[in-house]
Amino acid sequence: MIYLDNAASTQIHEDVLDAMLPYLKDQYGNPSSIHRYGRLANKAIEKARKQIALLINADPSEIFLTSGGTESNNMALWGIAAKKPSSKIITSSIEHDAILEPCKKLAKNGFDIIYIPVDNRVIVNLDELKNSLSDDVCIVSIMFGNNEMGTIEPIAQIAQMCNEQKIPFHTDAVQAVGKTPIDVKQLGIDLLSISSHKINGPKGVGALYIRNGIDVDPLILGGGQEHGLRSGTENVANIVGFGKACELAKLHLTENIFHMKKLRDNLVTKIIQEIPYVTLNGDIENRLPNNAHFTFLGVAGEDLIIKLDEYGIAASTGSACTSGTLKPSHVILASGKSREYASNTLRLSFSSTNNFNEIDYTI
Amino acid sequence: MIYLDNAASTQIHEDVLDAMLPYLKDQYGNPSSIHRYGRLANKAIEKARKQIALLINADPSEIFLTSGGTESNNMALWGIAAKKPSSKIITSSIEHDAILEPCKKLAKNGFDIIYIPVDNRVIVNLDELKNSLSDDVCIVSIMFGNNEMGTIEPIAQIAQMCNEQKIPFHTDAVQAVGKTPIDVKQLGIDLLSISSHKINGPKGVGALYIRNGIDVDPLILGGGQEHGLRSGTENVANIVGFGKACELAKLHLTENIFHMKKLRDNLVTKIIQEIPYVTLNGDIENRLPNNAHFTFLGVAGEDLIIKLDEYGIAASTGSACTSGTLKPSHVILASGKSREYASNTLRLSFSSTNNFNEIDYTI
Repeated sequence: MIYLDNAASTQIHEDVLDAMLPYLKDQYGNPSSIHRYGRLANKAIEKARKQIALLINADPSEIFLTSGGTESNNMALWGIAAKKPSSKIITSSIEHDAILEPCKKLAKNGFDIIYIPVDNRVIVNLDELKNSLSDDVCIVSIMFGNNEMGTIEPIAQIAQMCNEQKIPFHTDAVQAVGKTPIDVKQLGIDLLSISSHKINGPKGVGALYIRNGIDVDPLILGGGQEHGLRSGTENVANIVGFGKACELAKLHLTENIFHMKKLRDNLVTKIIQEIPYVTLNGDIENRLPNNAHFTFLGVAGEDLIIKLDEYGIAASTGSACTSGTLKPSHVILASGKSREYASNTLRLSFSSTNNFNEIDYTI
Repeated sequence: MIYLDNAASTQIHEDVLDAMLPYLKDQYGNPSSIHRYGRLANKAIEKARKQIALLINADPSEIFLTSGGTESNNMALWGIAAKKPSSKIITSSIEHDAILEPCKKLAKNGFDIIYIPVDNRVIVNLDELKNSLSDDVCIVSIMFGNNEMGTIEPIAQIAQMCNEQKIPFHTDAVQAVGKTPIDVKQLGIDLLSISSHKINGPKGVGALYIRNGIDVDPLILGGGQEHGLRSGTENVANIVGFGKACELAKLHLTENIFHMKKLRDNLVTKIIQEIPYVTLNGDIENRLPNNAHFTFLGVAGEDLIIKLDEYGIAASTGSACTSGTLKPSHVILASGKSREYASNTLRLSFSSTNNFNEIDYTI
């Protein structure tokens, strides 16, 4: 089986699993316990926190562990919104549902949600964003790299605009972490969501980076773990695995990007050359190195996925989270394309473990 | 090392880890993906859902997977409260912080929280509860078995009172599941929280049982997983492990209860006989079979834990989640005891894997 759906989930790296195993076997203490088992579990979490922080150049005290990217996004939005009731929230029309759905509910709770439009490459309109910034905006949330089309947004510029007006800036970087260098300090990011299972770590764990000085309300309350910001017994083994995955992502970032980009560019070039009526969607330059997103005019994406599956290739039409719903992608529609165009898409997403033979077979 | 802190967390059963491993290795699909990898992951989750449902005699469609007991409790309270703004919530003074802390925040959001008092065995006062029930109560949440003292509450009677008045009844059964037979249908429970890592499953996963017909708002929004009630890519390996742990708990329930009770009774009898100034707290009859909770008058609980740790025994003063805070247990205080009494406690909690040699050494 050739797995080209790495934007949906990735295989756990064997070093990651090796790091996790002791915590799935003998090191089963609750990190809040004061005996040896507890202290060892706690120490393991703090090591992982450092590894996660290093990948994005944050301080470990700025990393808050969650159950994954979706929870991180919810926590960022609700946590900031709670500080400024009935204010405005700025986001874009191409966010993941883990941003759009909380926003819909926040709208019902009295918040005014402003959706910044995008161009045909799904890059947000910076002028519109700038004009929308005001004192009554509680948060701006714009994703780093789009999960469907792979377009990387102008995060540094957006962050700078927000920083100048002292508006907290959050970015859903679930797809971008490990695929492009991210330095939260240099970029001026206030909050950033990460998911472990997109970077060869285990599922069920993620983090929200919250810059020191940004005040956030907790979403899940209880025993007061994560300095009171995220209660619940920590998912120790998965956190340890997440930490290791971050360490590996940092260590191999340049070579991984190079490898994925080479595979991707090879595939894109040949598909465009050899198959008629195919378009590559999204931006060519500002793009995640592991993403290829096509429209095969006249061919339903779902049919293509099923056919590819029969040939032993795992692919996706767009976001895994909305697969099976058959509703056309809101990202493609936002880029100005028709519903028919949106239903003819194929996303192939790579990981450092893919090779050229797989790409040749797929073409 | 002798591990007698099983109420804080338990060792993963080796059959559970064996069940998880394929999903930590080759079966890494996202359950929402429509290709083979996705379908296999989805199938594994649905199998686990059945195993979880069977343990409490629920229908699989009534099981909603979460990141753990704390999230399940938060989801039950916020999810029901959202349906009836500014109404009343009834709970008890001996709940876990995962109930008490959300209640504090709900109080700030305009809800009236009624805390039912308990007697010296920490059994809730049923007359007070009955008198508090009214049309403007949105939910009653009373824990099944207390995490510190081990007392089992009169759940059937409480459920019946709530059922008669058509008020949703939730119980935090994190400590009780796998330690006492639970049949949600027979008991008349509407919502019930379970945690995997308390029953020899992995950390970072749990479930909320929601009886068909009970309407709950989601806490975490996004891709629409768990029928829209809990978004986020499913923690497949941990869910599979949780399912297996439930299957084992169901299969060995009677023998496990018998074994833990025998160990516990043996330890309690000898400690009470051989050591002066010791009291067993909580109820003797209505008690979790794996819990022993003492007060050693004049000995600080923390000192005792550290000393026991030096002798290779892992124990706790009470709840792991509040260890390290040095604030006296709200459960002991609620039972009418002094702060000094509350600071002299020791909780020893057993699992089916403990043996009599460990108990003898501990005594």
